Amino acid sequence: MKFLNGPADDLRLRWERLQAAMRTEGAEACLVSTSVNLYYLTGRIYGGYFYLPAAGRPRFFIKRPQGLEEEGLTYIRKPEEINGLLAAEGLPLPKKLLLEADEISYTDYCRLSAAFPSCESGNASTLLRRLRMCKTPWEIEQFRISARQHAKTYAEVPACFRPGMSDLQFQAEIERRMRLNGSLGTFRAYGPMDIFMGSVLTGGNAEAPSPFDFALGGAGADLSLPIGANGTPLREGCSVMVDMAGNYTAYMTDMTRTFSVGKLPEAAYRAHELARRIEREIAQMLRPGLSTVEPYRLALRLAEEGGLAANFMGTRQQAKFVGHGIGLQINEPPVLAARPESLLEAGMLIAVEPKFVLPGIGAVGIEDSFLLTSDGAEQITFSEPSIVDLTK
Amino acid sequence: MKFLNGPADDLRLRWERLQAAMRTEGAEACLVSTSVNLYYLTGRIYGGYFYLPAAGRPRFFIKRPQGLEEEGLTYIRKPEEINGLLAAEGLPLPKKLLLEADEISYTDYCRLSAAFPSCESGNASTLLRRLRMCKTPWEIEQFRISARQHAKTYAEVPACFRPGMSDLQFQAEIERRMRLNGSLGTFRAYGPMDIFMGSVLTGGNAEAPSPFDFALGGAGADLSLPIGANGTPLREGCSVMVDMAGNYTAYMTDMTRTFSVGKLPEAAYRAHELARRIEREIAQMLRPGLSTVEPYRLALRLAEEGGLAANFMGTRQQAKFVGHGIGLQINEPPVLAARPESLLEAGMLIAVEPKFVLPGIGAVGIEDSFLLTSDGAEQITFSEPSIVDLTK
Repeated sequence: MKFLNGPADDLRLRWERLQAAMRTEGAEACLVSTSVNLYYLTGRIYGGYFYLPAAGRPRFFIKRPQGLEEEGLTYIRKPEEINGLLAAEGLPLPKKLLLEADEISYTDYCRLSAAFPSCESGNASTLLRRLRMCKTPWEIEQFRISARQHAKTYAEVPACFRPGMSDLQFQAEIERRMRLNGSLGTFRAYGPMDIFMGSVLTGGNAEAPSPFDFALGGAGADLSLPIGANGTPLREGCSVMVDMAGNYTAYMTDMTRTFSVGKLPEAAYRAHELARRIEREIAQMLRPGLSTVEPYRLALRLAEEGGLAANFMGTRQQAKFVGHGIGLQINEPPVLAARPESLLEAGMLIAVEPKFVLPGIGAVGIEDSFLLTSDGAEQITFSEPSIVDLTK
Repeated sequence: MKFLNGPADDLRLRWERLQAAMRTEGAEACLVSTSVNLYYLTGRIYGGYFYLPAAGRPRFFIKRPQGLEEEGLTYIRKPEEINGLLAAEGLPLPKKLLLEADEISYTDYCRLSAAFPSCESGNASTLLRRLRMCKTPWEIEQFRISARQHAKTYAEVPACFRPGMSDLQFQAEIERRMRLNGSLGTFRAYGPMDIFMGSVLTGGNAEAPSPFDFALGGAGADLSLPIGANGTPLREGCSVMVDMAGNYTAYMTDMTRTFSVGKLPEAAYRAHELARRIEREIAQMLRPGLSTVEPYRLALRLAEEGGLAANFMGTRQQAKFVGHGIGLQINEPPVLAARPESLLEAGMLIAVEPKFVLPGIGAVGIEDSFLLTSDGAEQITFSEPSIVDLTK
C-alpha cells in the first residue's frame, strides 16, 4: 500500500522548507510523531516517527499499520531502534535533534532524548508551527475543497430548523448535513480545547464565558464539554450563531453566520452590520507585511465608535483577538491580537471573526476565511452574510 | 457560579484516594491541568490547575472561565503565581510534587517544574490512571446513564438503514440519533487515537489495519482520520459492525453489535456465536483478584479451537487484547491481554470485545461493558446480541 499522500513535489516543498529552517537553527535532524505534524510531512497519520535530516531524504519509522511501502520506510517496534538503524545505513547521527517539545509528553520527550544519547535536543514544535503558517499549493487546494462543502452545508442550515427545537437539536441536524456533505468530524486544536464539531449559540447562553481561548463561550451540554450549545430553546426574537467546523478535508475552513428566530430588535441588526463592516475593512487591510496588531486595533476602534466595546467578543469575558490562522488545527498562528506582534505573509490562511454578544438576544457577527496573496486577501468562504430568519 | 460538580462526598473520596496514594509514593502534593484529570478531581473542565497537598484541602487556580466561586479558588494569570500564593497562605511548599508527566507537554512540564524551583518532581499521570481504574459510586452512576442512552440509540440502529447507503451515510444517521439521545460527541482516548464518534465496519474495509491500538481497523474516510468507515456501500451478504461511543456522560460505555444486509454465509453466524460464547465465558470468569491474562488466554484458546485464530481481532493485523478498562477515556487500564499482567479489582469497568474479521463479509462479534463487583461481573450494556438483519 502506497505510503506518502499528496503530490510528490508539494511534499518535497514542505520537507525543503523544514530543512532550510533546521539549518538556520543549527539543527541536524528532526523527529516527529504527533498526528498533525505526521500528516503535514507525509500526508498520512500513522503510529510511528518521521525523521528528516537537515540534508538528504527523510526516513519513515513505522509501528502501525502493517502493509505500507515506501523508499526509506522501516517497520520498528520501539523508538530505541531508530538510532541503530540510522547508524547501520551509514548516516551520521545528528548533533542537534529537534523534538516536538510543545506537543509530546514529558515522558515521551525524555524517552526519545535518551534514545539519541549523544544528541542535544531542540524544539521542533515552534519551528513547525511557524512553517505551517504559510500553506503550499496542495494545502491551499484542500482549503478550497473544505470551503466549498462548508458553503454547501451552510446553505442547508435553514432547512435544519423546526419551531420548538433546542440549540442542541438544531446542531444535531446541522451535524448530519455536515457529515453527509463529507465532514470528517474531527476538530483539531493546538492545546486544550474540548469542542465538538463547532458551536451553535443562542439567547443568554452566548454570554457564558469559555474555559478555552475560543472566540465565544456558551455553557455547553455538560461540564465535561463546557462550550457551545447547552439545550437552550430557539426562541422568537433570539439570534442563532452558527460556527460549525469546515472540516471536510484535514485543512479546516472557519466560517460563522448569524440566523434569527423571527425578527430581532433593531440593535441586533446594527451590531451585525458593524461586525460586517469590521470584517470588510480588515479584509481590505490584510496584505503581506501588515502587522497582526493593526486589524485588532481597527476592530477595537470601530467597536468603540459604534458604542459596542462592552459587547465585542463577549460580555462577561471578552476574547482578546479578532482573527487567527487556520490549518490542520483551528487555532494556528498568527493571531490578530494586541500581542504577540508578527507580520502577515503570503500563503497564510486567516479567519476574521468580529462578533458581538447582546444580552437577552444572543451573538451576532460574522466570520470568513481569507487566503493571503501578494495582492491582499482573497475570501474563500461564502454564504449569505446578512442575518437570515429561520422562520421564513 | 458553583465550581465543584458532583456529590461532595464522592469528590472527597477521590481526593482521599489520591492523597493516600501520594503518601505511599512519598509525594507531598500534586498539580493537575489536563481535561480528564481536572474533570476527575473537580467535576469540571477549566483553564487552570488543581493543587492537592498530601494532607489538607485542595486549591483551585483558575485562568478561565471567569465568575466561578469556591473555597480555595483563586484566579491566576500564569502558573508561576501558584508557588507564591501557597506560601502567602502559610502552606509549606512540597518537597516532592507530582506532575502529569505522561500527558502534559515537555515544555509545560519544564515550565511547571521551574515554577516550583525547590521541588523534586514525580509522575502524577501513572498514579491517577491507576486510581481512576476503580470507579466511585457517582462515577458508576454516570456509566449507568450512558449505558441506558447507549441502549436506546442501538435500538434505533435498524431504523437508520436505507438500501443503497454507504457505511458513512449509515453512520451519519446513527450519529444523529446519538446526539438526539444526549451524546456529548466527544471521544476521549489516552495517547494518539484519532477517531470520530466510533466505528462502523462493513465488507472488505474490516480488514484494513489500524494505525492505533484499537480493536479493529477500517481505512477511514480520509488519511487524516485513518480508522473506521470509508464509504463502502452496505452490500447484500455483508456484515455491518456498529461500535459507536457510549458518550452520553463524560464516562463512556463501550458496546458493539453486529448487523447484516440480508443473510450472511453460515460461517459468519458460527463466528458470531463463538464471539458471544467467548464474551459469556469471560463474563463468568471476571472477578476481583483474577489476572488480566486469563481472559485473553481463554479467548485465544476458544478462537483456536473454533478454527478462527487467524480471524480473531483482525486478519492482516491483529489486536493483541480482548478487553480493556473504560472511563473518562475509552482505553483505560487494565487491558485484558498477554501483558502487562495485573489483577482485577472491584469497581473496575471493563469492556469485553471478542471480534472476528471474515474476508469478503466483514467483522462479526460483540462487545459489552461490565462492572466488577465483589460477586463477579455485572453487565451494564444491553442490546439484542444476535446478528440483526437490517433489511427486515
